[in-house]
Amino acid sequence: MAESVMPAPAKIEPTGKTRGQRMRPRPSPRPAGAAAERSARQTKRTVVAAAEARPNRGPSGHHPLTDLDGNARLQGYEERIKTAFDRIVPVLKQISALQHESDFERQAQSIARAELGFDLPEHMLADAWVTQLDLRRLFAWCVFETYRRMSDDFFANDPLGGRETGDFERFLQDCGFHQLDVTPCADGRLAHAISYVLRLPFGAVRRKPYAGGLFDVENTVSKWGEVELGRFREGVPNTADAPTRYLKAVIYHYSSVDPHHQGCAAHGSNDAAAAQAALDRLLAFRQSVENGFCCGASVSLLLIGMDTDTDAIRIHVPDGEGHMDLAQSIDAIKVHAITRDLEPGAARARVSELVKAHAPTTADSGMLRLVARLIENNLSQIDYVREVHGGQYADVGHAERFMGVGIGFEEIQLRNLTYFAYLYTVEEGAADLDVGRKIFGGLNVSHGLPIPIVIRFDYHGGVPGARERAVTRCRRLDAALAGRFADLADRGLLHRLLVVRDSDAGAGIEVVGSSLDAVTAGGH
Amino acid sequence: MAESVMPAPAKIEPTGKTRGQRMRPRPSPRPAGAAAERSARQTKRTVVAAAEARPNRGPSGHHPLTDLDGNARLQGYEERIKTAFDRIVPVLKQISALQHESDFERQAQSIARAELGFDLPEHMLADAWVTQLDLRRLFAWCVFETYRRMSDDFFANDPLGGRETGDFERFLQDCGFHQLDVTPCADGRLAHAISYVLRLPFGAVRRKPYAGGLFDVENTVSKWGEVELGRFREGVPNTADAPTRYLKAVIYHYSSVDPHHQGCAAHGSNDAAAAQAALDRLLAFRQSVENGFCCGASVSLLLIGMDTDTDAIRIHVPDGEGHMDLAQSIDAIKVHAITRDLEPGAARARVSELVKAHAPTTADSGMLRLVARLIENNLSQIDYVREVHGGQYADVGHAERFMGVGIGFEEIQLRNLTYFAYLYTVEEGAADLDVGRKIFGGLNVSHGLPIPIVIRFDYHGGVPGARERAVTRCRRLDAALAGRFADLADRGLLHRLLVVRDSDAGAGIEVVGSSLDAVTAGGH
Repeated sequence: MAESVMPAPAKIEPTGKTRGQRMRPRPSPRPAGAAAERSARQTKRTVVAAAEARPNRGPSGHHPLTDLDGNARLQGYEERIKTAFDRIVPVLKQISALQHESDFERQAQSIARAELGFDLPEHMLADAWVTQLDLRRLFAWCVFETYRRMSDDFFANDPLGGRETGDFERFLQDCGFHQLDVTPCADGRLAHAISYVLRLPFGAVRRKPYAGGLFDVENTVSKWGEVELGRFREGVPNTADAPTRYLKAVIYHYSSVDPHHQGCAAHGSNDAAAAQAALDRLLAFRQSVENGFCCGASVSLLLIGMDTDTDAIRIHVPDGEGHMDLAQSIDAIKVHAITRDLEPGAARARVSELVKAHAPTTADSGMLRLVARLIENNLSQIDYVREVHGGQYADVGHAERFMGVGIGFEEIQLRNLTYFAYLYTVEEGAADLDVGRKIFGGLNVSHGLPIPIVIRFDYHGGVPGARERAVTRCRRLDAALAGRFADLADRGLLHRLLVVRDSDAGAGIEVVGSSLDAVTAGGH
Repeated sequence: MAESVMPAPAKIEPTGKTRGQRMRPRPSPRPAGAAAERSARQTKRTVVAAAEARPNRGPSGHHPLTDLDGNARLQGYEERIKTAFDRIVPVLKQISALQHESDFERQAQSIARAELGFDLPEHMLADAWVTQLDLRRLFAWCVFETYRRMSDDFFANDPLGGRETGDFERFLQDCGFHQLDVTPCADGRLAHAISYVLRLPFGAVRRKPYAGGLFDVENTVSKWGEVELGRFREGVPNTADAPTRYLKAVIYHYSSVDPHHQGCAAHGSNDAAAAQAALDRLLAFRQSVENGFCCGASVSLLLIGMDTDTDAIRIHVPDGEGHMDLAQSIDAIKVHAITRDLEPGAARARVSELVKAHAPTTADSGMLRLVARLIENNLSQIDYVREVHGGQYADVGHAERFMGVGIGFEEIQLRNLTYFAYLYTVEEGAADLDVGRKIFGGLNVSHGLPIPIVIRFDYHGGVPGARERAVTRCRRLDAALAGRFADLADRGLLHRLLVVRDSDAGAGIEVVGSSLDAVTAGGH
């Protein structure tokens, strides 16, 4: 995390309490075609306005433990990426208005280059004079291109510093854990849970999102076994005789702004049900390991709740036996309020005291240290949401820019950028896909825009034939998606980008196909 | 294998060279209603007739190393099970003829009890007088009941002695291998490969059939890791420092009787292509282990070919580096011919010499011992096919009694009893299912009989919720099957039995549903 502070970039739109307001599609709040200079001026105005409008901030401006450099860097990344997606509609509007002018193609490319940073495909512009510009295809193409550029940047430049894992891995082992495996809910509002909410280097955490936090027990037992084998065979991440455990955490979520509608859809926005279901799944995992393996095999568990409006977390600290109490938790938002006026050293000590006071008396000391670190990290995010988003997100509900379907997506570390459906087949994942269709029915289709879907399968490059099998999976899933949503696909309202990635090589993504490659007769 | 010799049971039909003839559906060669006594008399006649008709047998009658007790036991089991299935059609014909008689229900139950060994469901008989007996439903019900009874017997009584694994496991480790993992082609003509063709206790072998022998590399690497972890953590099957390896074998197949039509369908009956594809997959598995794990991780490989008409095998013995040559193999049928007139001790020594002579000079001595054992075991099966089936199977092609879809089916150890489609979803397994539909289109639908499908998922009972997830999988697959083959299902020509099994408990199957449970309006 030694990267220098980036200048605060342009804000996308004024912050404020716009509860329930959908972020997109919407008209851009500033005229399209803004140059960097104008953006910089706007930024200053917005920051001043936000500072004046802070109802919840104390005199010190931020919590003494808040990582200001980190916040600035994360803000820069979030705004850069989201702006890139959100510029697409206003730019295409501008281009659409020009489509029957004589030097349309030159003008369109000039605007695209300046505003989006890339050229549009010649063939999509060339035929506009005959009938009209196919804006659905062009929109999907721009979304996919923006995604591709974002991914390439992510894997080439590590903009979030997620591969600087050494410090955290040492700390984790000191606390008694050799692997942290986190299942956030697959809801797009938790996609930034690792890098933003918990402020952990994503390279040090196994992230496996599942709808409702209901992770696959069999798969996790298998992963546990893989990690244990690595310890026995290779001493990675530590040797098998080290008294550390595999730590499995689930993040359930709720909405403080609109608790009965914007909580976890998989549990009908019932917070207690969401927490209980996550806890039950954790206990099932531990019991599976204990039943399936002899010699005292076990794992550690942790249950975390998250408010998707403020990004504040609460943690249910387990007792010495590993039991967690849903009624007992340490709440970061309260810790923030209690410790905000202290000096950093005193604040850190007080955080530890508060964690201990809200944990069972028999709680393990290593677990207490880890929980204190997570709470402390979250204080920065609480301030981030307050400063950057006016205390709570404008997009309380869904505002995803595209759907992600398949397995992978390490590069998605931003809130509400992507609606995920982690699946191998439409047959198994039909329910999640139907939810995604409904969400994008409101966000895109109702405005005449197609649903952009990135189909993705990661593979292990060291396994011969694995890439070809991943490509085959992409194509099979693509065909099944087009079949299930034929009504949309036939009207040009469903477009897919097919992507694979060698997760062993640490390389970027590889595009292997797209529904846009096919020339359609109907002109969409 | 210390079980006593069972009396040779009734034969199903006279053996003989009925090339290409489909076994079923067909009229029973003997009148239905045969009592046990009459069966016994028939058996004697058939055995004498078979002995007189042996064109390929030498004066000694059988190979000196043939396990006569084993052959008798295997014959008893095969005939008992297949007869049970093959009695269904003639018995239902007999019952059908009585359906408008006044005491129909009593007569029908009496016949079913005597001939099939179980009562028919009252409600299926009760309404026959109104319109007519629903023989499609009754046929499917009888197939499912026969399958259920076979499975219960298999898990309760271990009729093949497949759980007597100690001797073989010790021998295997002496040869330098701690796990034998065999992928036969999923073709029903190889379903008896472990228990009959190779004469191995099925409990000591991991059997994972795949169409064309093309096993899942990722899944097998994962299994390899599980086995290694067991060695490190628990010293099972041996400790990790023992210089033994995981041995992965593939059995490809071909037809000596009709090589261009009855070979492996997945490879267009091209023997060379089948062997090469299996070899490539084996090498990919080894390379995956070597690439993915450090510290000299590797595995051993073995490639076996099998003639589905005679059950004779050939083995491509690897050299000291693990390379196998498709042009070099040791053929059991030739070994049988060369050694048949020797004394047992001399024959066994000669088998070992022949194996060595047909292996690369650098071949590992443990591997040579294992191969010699497999060849010797196969000599018994060659005699079995000669004695029991007249030298080659009457059912050169498909003659399966039902389809098995899902994951599991340890109890299926008989040739041509079941067409398998190992899959989790219809989406992924559509190609295999369509082949199955085509096969049973000829075997059953063309005669007006439904396709009986057993949907099956095994689960680990030690994993909380695993049974419920297996049941959910069954139901999801059932719905997808009924959807894909709606044209058949709507006409009552597709029936499904839903079955789960706790593979940890070693218990029998549990029926969790059936398409026959639903009362259909259309009378089919």
